[in-house]
Amino acid sequence: MPATGPAPATGATGPTSPAVGVAEARVRAAYARIEEVDRPEVWIALVPSAVALADARAVDARLDAGEVLPLAGRTVAVKDNIDVAGLPTTAACPSYATAPGGRPGPAAASAPAIQALVDAGAVVLGKTNLDQFATGLVGVRSPYGAVRHATLPDRVSGGSSSGSAVAVALGIADIGIGTDTAGSGRVPAAFGGLVGIKTTLGLVPTTGVVPACRTYDVVTTFTRDLALGVRATRTMTGADPLDPGRRPWPVDVRLALRSAPVVAVPRDEDLAPLSPGWRAAFTAAVAAVRGVGAQVRTVDISAMLAAARLLYDGAIVAERYEAVGAFLADAPDADPTVRAIILAGRDTPAHAYIDDRARLAVAKLEAAAVLDGCDLLLLPTTTEHPTIAAVRADPVGINRRLGTYTNFVNLLDLAAVAIPAGEADGGPFGVTLVSRAFEDQLGLDLAARLLGAEAPPVVDGGVDVLVVGAHLRGQPLSSELEELGARFGRTARTSDAYRLVALDTQPRKPGLLRVGPGGGAPIVGEVWRLSPGALGTLLAGLPAPMMLGRVELEDGSWVVGFGCTVESGAAGSDITATGGWVEALRRGL
Amino acid sequence: MPATGPAPATGATGPTSPAVGVAEARVRAAYARIEEVDRPEVWIALVPSAVALADARAVDARLDAGEVLPLAGRTVAVKDNIDVAGLPTTAACPSYATAPGGRPGPAAASAPAIQALVDAGAVVLGKTNLDQFATGLVGVRSPYGAVRHATLPDRVSGGSSSGSAVAVALGIADIGIGTDTAGSGRVPAAFGGLVGIKTTLGLVPTTGVVPACRTYDVVTTFTRDLALGVRATRTMTGADPLDPGRRPWPVDVRLALRSAPVVAVPRDEDLAPLSPGWRAAFTAAVAAVRGVGAQVRTVDISAMLAAARLLYDGAIVAERYEAVGAFLADAPDADPTVRAIILAGRDTPAHAYIDDRARLAVAKLEAAAVLDGCDLLLLPTTTEHPTIAAVRADPVGINRRLGTYTNFVNLLDLAAVAIPAGEADGGPFGVTLVSRAFEDQLGLDLAARLLGAEAPPVVDGGVDVLVVGAHLRGQPLSSELEELGARFGRTARTSDAYRLVALDTQPRKPGLLRVGPGGGAPIVGEVWRLSPGALGTLLAGLPAPMMLGRVELEDGSWVVGFGCTVESGAAGSDITATGGWVEALRRGL
Repeated sequence: MPATGPAPATGATGPTSPAVGVAEARVRAAYARIEEVDRPEVWIALVPSAVALADARAVDARLDAGEVLPLAGRTVAVKDNIDVAGLPTTAACPSYATAPGGRPGPAAASAPAIQALVDAGAVVLGKTNLDQFATGLVGVRSPYGAVRHATLPDRVSGGSSSGSAVAVALGIADIGIGTDTAGSGRVPAAFGGLVGIKTTLGLVPTTGVVPACRTYDVVTTFTRDLALGVRATRTMTGADPLDPGRRPWPVDVRLALRSAPVVAVPRDEDLAPLSPGWRAAFTAAVAAVRGVGAQVRTVDISAMLAAARLLYDGAIVAERYEAVGAFLADAPDADPTVRAIILAGRDTPAHAYIDDRARLAVAKLEAAAVLDGCDLLLLPTTTEHPTIAAVRADPVGINRRLGTYTNFVNLLDLAAVAIPAGEADGGPFGVTLVSRAFEDQLGLDLAARLLGAEAPPVVDGGVDVLVVGAHLRGQPLSSELEELGARFGRTARTSDAYRLVALDTQPRKPGLLRVGPGGGAPIVGEVWRLSPGALGTLLAGLPAPMMLGRVELEDGSWVVGFGCTVESGAAGSDITATGGWVEALRRGL
Repeated sequence: MPATGPAPATGATGPTSPAVGVAEARVRAAYARIEEVDRPEVWIALVPSAVALADARAVDARLDAGEVLPLAGRTVAVKDNIDVAGLPTTAACPSYATAPGGRPGPAAASAPAIQALVDAGAVVLGKTNLDQFATGLVGVRSPYGAVRHATLPDRVSGGSSSGSAVAVALGIADIGIGTDTAGSGRVPAAFGGLVGIKTTLGLVPTTGVVPACRTYDVVTTFTRDLALGVRATRTMTGADPLDPGRRPWPVDVRLALRSAPVVAVPRDEDLAPLSPGWRAAFTAAVAAVRGVGAQVRTVDISAMLAAARLLYDGAIVAERYEAVGAFLADAPDADPTVRAIILAGRDTPAHAYIDDRARLAVAKLEAAAVLDGCDLLLLPTTTEHPTIAAVRADPVGINRRLGTYTNFVNLLDLAAVAIPAGEADGGPFGVTLVSRAFEDQLGLDLAARLLGAEAPPVVDGGVDVLVVGAHLRGQPLSSELEELGARFGRTARTSDAYRLVALDTQPRKPGLLRVGPGGGAPIVGEVWRLSPGALGTLLAGLPAPMMLGRVELEDGSWVVGFGCTVESGAAGSDITATGGWVEALRRGL
């Protein structure tokens, strides 16, 4: 069916511009792919194609009007425990969207995280299947049917965000939105050969999400490529200023992984639950991490694995009861495994929960000690890839094993990104990079190296700083920027208002002196991005005669940059003609 | 009894040096005062005077050896729910320190907060009486007897930190250490005419403290003067790096209250629970706040008052059961009121607790909205000053009313300082300055203004920055420093290596140029302290041609300070001879 909306009346289009807009084309392709793959179990509710196409044309109109839309026309599959305006939210329990004890009727508004995606140009295709009430890591606990793996249909897709992951793995949606409490945003990524980004608790709002454990729930992304996942995650971060669980990026947030990071890996005995194939693949992944410049350090993660058991064996499961237990007790369409798990939390006394939370607080300290001196922790995302039949035969035991390396992450306030890492046992294999809270960027940066990908930073903001001397990459003080979590941006040159002098400092440094337009020459440097906290720390430790202030770049923009005192400038020897410090050093000046 | 230790062999002493050391003299005076006042109910365990005197002599020896001890010889009374090495910890329940279900035997180590005081030169006098298990605001719920008010013995002292407060009010101890969950560090301060500092949750470690509600407990100080309270608080802050509840100062912590703050005060209807005398005194306190330069804004605190009810009427009381309930159920010496309150938490289901915590998270947002645009909230510390007889007749109702303005503070993650504010109903009257989490300094700064006191900053650290122009007090950009939470330090002059020029900027600014020793003149400026985060923000927004780097002061020290580019310096007119920007402006240059 051709577009029924009016064609753009004006606007230059590039030589490859299609007859329909970019968003409309993508949405058309998505619906065609839905037909083609014939996987009805992926969806609980599809947006009618006419509606999605209208949404797409609206995006195209915004593009034509000159709006910059970072997710223009990207198609989104939303796990059906997250509100999308106009659609029911079933959490894979049909009666939840109809019965008075649930949340009857279509959602009045989209969850702010979803609305942020739409505002950025994304188009929602529909709501996807899940392990009921997001309780499970398998993707079979749903009255809407087991979600089969995208390419190995006798195996599980992983859960609980099964439909969103498979919609992306099948090439239907660009972005799958999931939720992750125990690993539901990571296990399906591993099985689907996808990138799954599970941010630090509180960054992406959970407003409009049916809680699993409200204290530990995170809205996540599945994507085929890292950059899109980062862009979507960044778009959703902070989307609801009124989210009671909101935790913004700290003012000294690290913006980049250092060039030679230390990556912790578990001891052999901590890897015993892996299938032989997954064990071998993990060994290869450790080698790959070494191959991209990381130092690997073996650590004992047994305390983390022990903390993980608190999620289902301890009192924390009462959070699941708090969220939906009263409804679920009488729901006729409850999955029996899910019902049993959640109702087990009904009679948990508060004092036991408080006690388990206190134990988790201690476990967080223990985890911090394990990670001391390390930038990241590399883990196999899960242990094996079971068949649907095997899970049906043992619905709890296998599920529990699958969460070995995911269950503790949210409990211990850690961030994680799951990435594909080759194959094992005839299917995709995946690893997860775990970081401290708010150090999400470190995991994403190592993910980019391992995947050979480029990705924008996930942290919004920061201050650009021009360095022209000892802080340049390869120079003696560049590690100072790395230790502050600074992120390399680009090579840049100053305007011609600057002179460069060699100073009498240890280590040797040049001084940049603004003498006025045309009075000097463009000097080459590098723009790094620092958090405000890191910038303050840099300045607090900056020795004389160096100074920091606004420096004009060749393109006429101004950034913070290095200068020096008049006194030191006058005493130094002029090396402006070299055009930059590295060249001056090369010439032996 | 004279000192038995060897007299210091060497060491110059000042002209007023007493025969005994300063610490020993203070401790001797404390024990004399204990005898004099005859208030045995204040103490649960006294340190034998010989032991305390030995401790004091050890402090004097450290002083003689040249150690700088910020709390040298300050005497400390410690609430008996906090461990002091070698003494039992009863929490006012004798069997708790002997029975197997409690914590039998003397404490092996002091709580890190107490140890920090001792390390700083303080001497512990003993352990004080309290409302049993810190449950109460009255000071009568103890088998060790009701703690009578210091000067009005028919009235309550306030609790639960009754003994520590009265020990200070009676002039025995310099520092009373309490704990505060519902107001136990504030109500006794109000009744005792004392300063009570209740920091943000997580700053002072609660390691070695018998929990009341472990999530909401804060270790507090009572002092007769503000400065000592701040010094003790600062000493205890961060004393245990392994405290699971530890929350350090944020990197952009505000270091000072702005000169013209906005102070919120409750509406008339929110003040209805006050006795007429306390109501009148609060009106006077509001006037006093206006009198020290604050703008007063009436706000609706009903949401806060409603949140307060969750502490005892909701599921949060399960925290009290978690802490000591299993022990208390069978304790023969339990206070009946305390037992009834705490055992009420036994059967609270975890899902109800989780639900109440979620409600508190929303209430925190509501409180933030109420305080939006305000620096502080001024409250009456409590409602009235009851007699012991009245409390015995109505042990729950009066206690509840006393917590009207204190119960919600910890629940909503706010900081508070209670200060004396005149008299009401024939006894001391007190108000509390409530701030957002980690903005403790703002309340302390307004307290200092109201009390006409000087006090050191409670926040340790920060970066000194010399300003010489438009950021000076009274100049157009000084508000920029105030908005960043910068703290004025002192007037200072540069070394004579600097020249000052008037720049062509808007607003008008001078530029400081380092030209070399003797090449200029000392230039007068002001040293302000900024958090690293604030410093980074200042630099990120600093317009050309200003720069920041190391500047040498007249005393030879170096601080971060303002400079300017060579270009602007060369174009400006030299005003070095004026000695500073304000003088230059005065001369019309």
